[in-house]
Amino acid sequence: MEVVNKYVSHKHHVDGYPSESDFELATTPLQPAPGSDEVIVKNLFLSIDPYQLNRMKRYSSSHTAITAASKIEPGQARRIDAYGVGKVVASGRAELEEGDVVAGLLGWEQYTVVRPGTVLMKVDAKDLPISYYANVLGEYSLHLHQIKEHKKDAQIDAMIFLTTATGPSGLTAFAGFYDVCKPKKGEKVFISAASGSVGSLVGQYAKLSGCYVVGCAGSKQKVDLLKGKLGFDDAFNYKEEADLKSALRRYFPEGIDIYFDNVGAAMLEAAVANMNPFGRVAVCGAISEYTNAGERAAPDLIDIIYKRITLRGFLSVDYLHLHEQFSAATSDHLRRGRMIALEDVSVGIESVPTAFVGLFRGDNVGKKLVRVGELEG
Amino acid sequence: MEVVNKYVSHKHHVDGYPSESDFELATTPLQPAPGSDEVIVKNLFLSIDPYQLNRMKRYSSSHTAITAASKIEPGQARRIDAYGVGKVVASGRAELEEGDVVAGLLGWEQYTVVRPGTVLMKVDAKDLPISYYANVLGEYSLHLHQIKEHKKDAQIDAMIFLTTATGPSGLTAFAGFYDVCKPKKGEKVFISAASGSVGSLVGQYAKLSGCYVVGCAGSKQKVDLLKGKLGFDDAFNYKEEADLKSALRRYFPEGIDIYFDNVGAAMLEAAVANMNPFGRVAVCGAISEYTNAGERAAPDLIDIIYKRITLRGFLSVDYLHLHEQFSAATSDHLRRGRMIALEDVSVGIESVPTAFVGLFRGDNVGKKLVRVGELEG
Repeated sequence: MEVVNKYVSHKHHVDGYPSESDFELATTPLQPAPGSDEVIVKNLFLSIDPYQLNRMKRYSSSHTAITAASKIEPGQARRIDAYGVGKVVASGRAELEEGDVVAGLLGWEQYTVVRPGTVLMKVDAKDLPISYYANVLGEYSLHLHQIKEHKKDAQIDAMIFLTTATGPSGLTAFAGFYDVCKPKKGEKVFISAASGSVGSLVGQYAKLSGCYVVGCAGSKQKVDLLKGKLGFDDAFNYKEEADLKSALRRYFPEGIDIYFDNVGAAMLEAAVANMNPFGRVAVCGAISEYTNAGERAAPDLIDIIYKRITLRGFLSVDYLHLHEQFSAATSDHLRRGRMIALEDVSVGIESVPTAFVGLFRGDNVGKKLVRVGELEG
Repeated sequence: MEVVNKYVSHKHHVDGYPSESDFELATTPLQPAPGSDEVIVKNLFLSIDPYQLNRMKRYSSSHTAITAASKIEPGQARRIDAYGVGKVVASGRAELEEGDVVAGLLGWEQYTVVRPGTVLMKVDAKDLPISYYANVLGEYSLHLHQIKEHKKDAQIDAMIFLTTATGPSGLTAFAGFYDVCKPKKGEKVFISAASGSVGSLVGQYAKLSGCYVVGCAGSKQKVDLLKGKLGFDDAFNYKEEADLKSALRRYFPEGIDIYFDNVGAAMLEAAVANMNPFGRVAVCGAISEYTNAGERAAPDLIDIIYKRITLRGFLSVDYLHLHEQFSAATSDHLRRGRMIALEDVSVGIESVPTAFVGLFRGDNVGKKLVRVGELEG
């Protein structure tokens, strides 16, 4: 019996806000047997992330910065890739067998044929939910060993770049907070999109580090979650603030030492205006600029100079050397209940477009995942 | 006989481009004898710097960032302070005597009564012109020992801040280039306002470090100077470029690794667009934003993230620990002719307003100084 693989593709380039009608569900017969070193994976959980929009654009500086390969043309055979967890249904690799649960770079589809050279990590999911491996505990999947060994090599650079945008939120939060922000106990930390996949983890790391933590989000439900379940010291709904500068002055009467930026634009300007001398901004994401190329943060350079502020863009792929430390510490925090992995799960490959579009409407609370298949059966 | 002290003050707050008519020359009798620990200095060379405009504004974030003391009200008894070199004409301090040449924080006047607690450094000007001590070889003058010892103290912080903006161009260039930009041999360095006091030194340090160096400036004369006398690899007149992004793409076909920013605004955006992965921007000045609060750089955050760019504001006061290293290396370069200190000298206290206003018109070539008195007599 021929197995059918349902997948989601974008019908045309997507340059502004995405909408459900930009996508279509299609089917293709599943390759019946894996080629040499190929693995056929039944996808279970897919990570849905804002950066994927940049892949669909006619032009994005992310396409050309190192390689053109991060652009995906509409209707292309290549899927929108997505970090995820799946189950091996057929393997041409000696080290993997049917039934193994693996994490790696999969795609917006029910089954992914994982090509030779692409790393799949076996997941030992006994004590934590397997969805965590598409989320907080995710690892880099693509050419991990090569990245580790040949980080200076130009060809590998291109691959790093491909991998880059699929960085799992856990390592992104960990490396961004500890290495880029270099927190000290008692410092005042502000996080935008704080109930999102990365922000919610950064806030929890910051609390565990003895910082004072305020987050912003886009609904009362999210604000309550930040102050309640996640233990933030305070939180606010940015949509209710006409003047972001004044709002931050109210929440940080002693100024901001660290700003973990997931949104860019006016919030970044307001944060810089409220920063303390030697303040640090980790530029992790700019979701409010992804959908609107005209929207740009223009922080006051006089502030940046006089307050000796550092703004630093980063990608978690540069922090593979921290992965073991991150993974051990974070698994331990999760097991002991000192940290919570917020997951917002939709069900079925059909729900991918809505899940993705919802990211830009702020629908998700925590990490957005789509469960496209069941472990059993 | 009563000695008269001529000085220049601003008649009102200066919020846009300054013009000569914003200033007036006035006179006041010179205090006949110094009080205890006071020193009366006959000013010889005054350093004229763009940041002084921020002191005259009705509002600038530089006023409130740490202390309000950096704002100087119109007509106030307090002069616009200026780093400079002078000759002691009367001393209430044991360690200084009449005839000593000193460097320190002086003012827009012929004579400055230097108050207790303000450091004056004796200048041993045997082998280099004394003007260099108001310029490339200047040192911090205000409470230097206190700054060194008590850097964490809040009260001292305010003083650091006062001192801050009077950082001598040499240490600014040295610390900004070596510590903030962390250059590697062969890297591609772009410098704006490259014929200015700091830019001209950064370019020379960069060449000495084996970098490829391109500068921009605002006239053919300056461009020729950069390529000729200062040994830049290339240079261009930004006023002749309709599209700064394309211009930088032409001058840096392999991309920019380091951008030493003295101007902000559109040039910063264009530089970020042309940067290589792991590029560094030292935000040293933003002269094009000083005169126009509406003018703001809005660099593309997607570039900053994907290319892992660091933008860092800095002030040379944070680099006092590098002063000895800087001073020894730079004096040696100057003596051996491996570096040139560009000086643009006007004569007479009356020329201060034109000298200052000219900074914003790009009149100066190299460090702008006013010779307000003669060493002899």
